[in-house]
Amino acid sequence: MTTEIISVGDELLIGQVVNTNAAFIGELCSSQGLKVQRVSTLGDEKSELIQCFARAWEEHDIVIVTGGLGPTHDDVTRDAVAEFFNSELLFSEPVFDDIQAFFASRQRDISDANRDQALVPHNAGYLRNLHGTAPGMHYERNEKHFFVLPGVPGEMKPMMQNAVIPLLSGLVSNAYASCVIMTTGIPESDLAEKFEGIEKFFGTASLAYLPSALGVRLRLSSIATQMEEAQNSLQQLKDFIYQRVSDYIYAEDERSLEEIVASLLIERSATIAVAESCSSGMLADRLTDVPGSSAYFDRGIVAYSNKSKEEELGVPAELLIEHGAVSREVALAMAEGIRARAGTDFALSTTGIAGPGGASEDKPVGMVWIAFCSNAQSFAIDYYFGNDRKKNKTRTAQTALEMLRRALLGLPALQPSNRTRT
Amino acid sequence: MTTEIISVGDELLIGQVVNTNAAFIGELCSSQGLKVQRVSTLGDEKSELIQCFARAWEEHDIVIVTGGLGPTHDDVTRDAVAEFFNSELLFSEPVFDDIQAFFASRQRDISDANRDQALVPHNAGYLRNLHGTAPGMHYERNEKHFFVLPGVPGEMKPMMQNAVIPLLSGLVSNAYASCVIMTTGIPESDLAEKFEGIEKFFGTASLAYLPSALGVRLRLSSIATQMEEAQNSLQQLKDFIYQRVSDYIYAEDERSLEEIVASLLIERSATIAVAESCSSGMLADRLTDVPGSSAYFDRGIVAYSNKSKEEELGVPAELLIEHGAVSREVALAMAEGIRARAGTDFALSTTGIAGPGGASEDKPVGMVWIAFCSNAQSFAIDYYFGNDRKKNKTRTAQTALEMLRRALLGLPALQPSNRTRT
Repeated sequence: MTTEIISVGDELLIGQVVNTNAAFIGELCSSQGLKVQRVSTLGDEKSELIQCFARAWEEHDIVIVTGGLGPTHDDVTRDAVAEFFNSELLFSEPVFDDIQAFFASRQRDISDANRDQALVPHNAGYLRNLHGTAPGMHYERNEKHFFVLPGVPGEMKPMMQNAVIPLLSGLVSNAYASCVIMTTGIPESDLAEKFEGIEKFFGTASLAYLPSALGVRLRLSSIATQMEEAQNSLQQLKDFIYQRVSDYIYAEDERSLEEIVASLLIERSATIAVAESCSSGMLADRLTDVPGSSAYFDRGIVAYSNKSKEEELGVPAELLIEHGAVSREVALAMAEGIRARAGTDFALSTTGIAGPGGASEDKPVGMVWIAFCSNAQSFAIDYYFGNDRKKNKTRTAQTALEMLRRALLGLPALQPSNRTRT
Repeated sequence: MTTEIISVGDELLIGQVVNTNAAFIGELCSSQGLKVQRVSTLGDEKSELIQCFARAWEEHDIVIVTGGLGPTHDDVTRDAVAEFFNSELLFSEPVFDDIQAFFASRQRDISDANRDQALVPHNAGYLRNLHGTAPGMHYERNEKHFFVLPGVPGEMKPMMQNAVIPLLSGLVSNAYASCVIMTTGIPESDLAEKFEGIEKFFGTASLAYLPSALGVRLRLSSIATQMEEAQNSLQQLKDFIYQRVSDYIYAEDERSLEEIVASLLIERSATIAVAESCSSGMLADRLTDVPGSSAYFDRGIVAYSNKSKEEELGVPAELLIEHGAVSREVALAMAEGIRARAGTDFALSTTGIAGPGGASEDKPVGMVWIAFCSNAQSFAIDYYFGNDRKKNKTRTAQTALEMLRRALLGLPALQPSNRTRT
């Protein structure tokens, strides 16, 4: 059972947009044990699309097309698909209801172009789009499946997860088990060192490292003829990994660190406030990405100027003069200051050199102090992240969240990775 | 003269690695006026590669293959290429010299597998690799060109820039011009309506819409036999677009709204502070993504709880009780409060229902008040974004930045898109 992904859009060919959709779909299909054999990326040209559909439909059992379903003249995918499958486009009331509801929720009027998006092929199923206006399509012929999805990631992803995968997961005969383990605070090469001897599990099971600025995701998978066997070998690999690096694991299955921290805070009926300099709002942003965050998040101060550190957080001017804004003393004063103001159980603070400017001999770009305080303890740790401004902010926010997670669980604080090596 | 890019590697198919190489090559080719017609991504399977090479070589003038040239058993691209072109692999002293120099510079020994990378096809040119061990290859037959490059971005990119592009740039007779126009605050379908009659430009020029939560990017391009002609028709299309929607255009050529706002603030030696509820730090985060942002950004308050709106921003408790936190009155009080505290020239505030909870009959999820204030004026506008929490935060931050841009330029404030339709 093989799959081809077809991505449509001139913007992909000229490199204006990186094809993250294909990676997303490929990962999801693989996680179901489906073999993705090819990704074809084409421009918005109908005859070429039809030619590509014909080859893919001949060669593969599953074809997933994404992109080119928008309401404007340059979107030709629906017409190409309709021509390929000899479909007549008919106005669908249920699809139009969804489009109307979508516009109503935004208090916007529907244009004629959007109204035309309710035209769907008479001989295909359609897939609801609750995050946009273009419905998806599904043709099933001789046990083969042809899906057509929007190209906007926020529309394609839920359609893929909620409509396509449930349909496909019933088709695979091999038993396939997989999981993702989320780590942070330890580089890929250090993980590999700690996993010495892991090769013995690589009969049915396999492991992939997926590093990003947030940490390294570990994708474990296992294929066997029986599900029990697949699950057993997956579990053995998982046990080994937990044995070696459990402190660095904050979640399984793509859950975010802010979700984990949110659950821990809610379980404890605890509250938090943050004082940010170099992460500059990103930590507050992450903490409030979780629905219901007002239960635990009280406030944040982005104290960018020294003056605001004094005025909003009560950091003594002498500390700023004597130690500089990027220092253990100021980080601690910021965390203690915001906790005192907000009256929360916990507080975090960040202050560092995001770059590219602002560095000095002893305070290089990427140096960041992060502090934690509660009624029981206060501490600050200096980390050294790198040269990229945005990545420094990202890693600062992530490391602060990890500091909170570890404190909530009574784990030792995350040390900078240069210190974890002996 | 058309081009196909062929990316090779199982890791691309299972979505473990996003295909940024194809975007890089596509962008570079397009910038030379070469039309990229297709990107094919395949796994490390020799027979499939050969089949794909045959079709691509038949259909296109230029084929650029990348990936699968490494020294390990799963790299099969060189063998596939050699078989396709009936090449014999011969040991090349100059290539081996490069490999030796590469290892010497890293003080590492050469393995047999690396030594074998000096085997190159007898009937092709090779491209030096100064950043790794796998040389590139170049076949020229009947004025067609077939390139084979390593997949490691740090090796592929310099080879593409220094060896492939100089060869290709001589081949293009057509002149190509392009630009990107960044818009925000107007949906794709409304843009299309405002562009009524734009088809008359679509002889040599073309237009693509690239929507995201931040707005719609417009990609304009033009191909003609002479550069002057290409530039003229591009300019005509551009003039038309500016005529119709100039207020919604904040930049050209992929610049971000925060960069634009940063320049405007710096030009005016002006400062800003922000008070955020529903965007919760994202606005401060965006404003400080620009290097040197401390010149204009003073501070931000993320006032999530009602208590913090009172304590940190001086929002009167009566306002919160009478109108609720999501109201014109509270938005204005937040903006005025932070501006008074920070003593900045400008202030922005956000308060809304990010969702999924917190809605009421008259305050649906996605309803957001954004306020602006300066010493000259204060105003607040209500927008209706949608159901997705993260997108609501993103659109809130973007719309607040756009409010600031328009105020700085003396443009009318951005109205919610339902109100722009008459």
